[in-house]
Amino acid sequence: MMKFYEDIAIGDAAEIGTHHFTAQDIKTFAQAYDPQPFHIDEEAARRSHFGALCASGWHTAAMWMRLMVLHRRHETEELMRRGETVPPHGPSPGFREMRWPRPVYAGDTISYAIEVREKRASISRPQWGLVIFLCSGANQRGEPVLSFLSTAFIGRRIQAKAPEQS
Amino acid sequence: MMKFYEDIAIGDAAEIGTHHFTAQDIKTFAQAYDPQPFHIDEEAARRSHFGALCASGWHTAAMWMRLMVLHRRHETEELMRRGETVPPHGPSPGFREMRWPRPVYAGDTISYAIEVREKRASISRPQWGLVIFLCSGANQRGEPVLSFLSTAFIGRRIQAKAPEQS
Repeated sequence: MMKFYEDIAIGDAAEIGTHHFTAQDIKTFAQAYDPQPFHIDEEAARRSHFGALCASGWHTAAMWMRLMVLHRRHETEELMRRGETVPPHGPSPGFREMRWPRPVYAGDTISYAIEVREKRASISRPQWGLVIFLCSGANQRGEPVLSFLSTAFIGRRIQAKAPEQS
Repeated sequence: MMKFYEDIAIGDAAEIGTHHFTAQDIKTFAQAYDPQPFHIDEEAARRSHFGALCASGWHTAAMWMRLMVLHRRHETEELMRRGETVPPHGPSPGFREMRWPRPVYAGDTISYAIEVREKRASISRPQWGLVIFLCSGANQRGEPVLSFLSTAFIGRRIQAKAPEQS
């Protein structure tokens, strides 16, 4: 996925990694950031509508981010090792449509992926293209547990001439 | 904000708390969930387009969640102390339009808030109403650093009759 804007095609997809959510993982995140009973205590979780200890949705999403950063770093190192140019990636302006269609329970292993959904050139910033990715996670039974849309600025190989600055 | 659906009005707003982001906070979150150089290393951050150590956007959002949980717990305890009925709140089906309009730097204090934007009765689940909140954070200079829309199922005081189950 570390490509220039021109080399990215709609439908391009990549697995970015997996994470096994232990009870301890789930509680450590939740105690700091989402201390609801069903995320920090097995007994309370059993009595809740979830029925068992499950991860905060923000934890499920944060693990996507971790694996994305590591995946991108690995791909960057590969490009540098081969002496190729590393396409610039700008900061993300945000995310849309975050969904947690089912809980992530202690013991689940989540596989995370990204897929290119849309792309368009940026008119105001001719050195960048805008790419929209569908970011997702699924458990060991292939059931979706996370999805959101991420917009990224990605460097263009052939840079259009910038409009004159006044 | 712990009200029944009928008692919630568009424009209702609440401060849910503040958090002071220390360099150590920022690095602890980022090492686990978003290990990009400008979130984990002061020197690398100084050389980046951010210019100084700043928090992962997911960290800024996760602190909103923590403060929201504590705020709701405090309000629930108040209601119980006064012997009032606690309105049921369902799990969030997700959120939309996450924006990080500017970075949260080490040393910033973020004030978090929620505001009711929309409400409507749920047709398929007559015991619930659907409320859309604008969730936000601003730094000590009042500059916005976070915003997103969150949808919540909130219990109705007067429950419409459920459709017959077949």
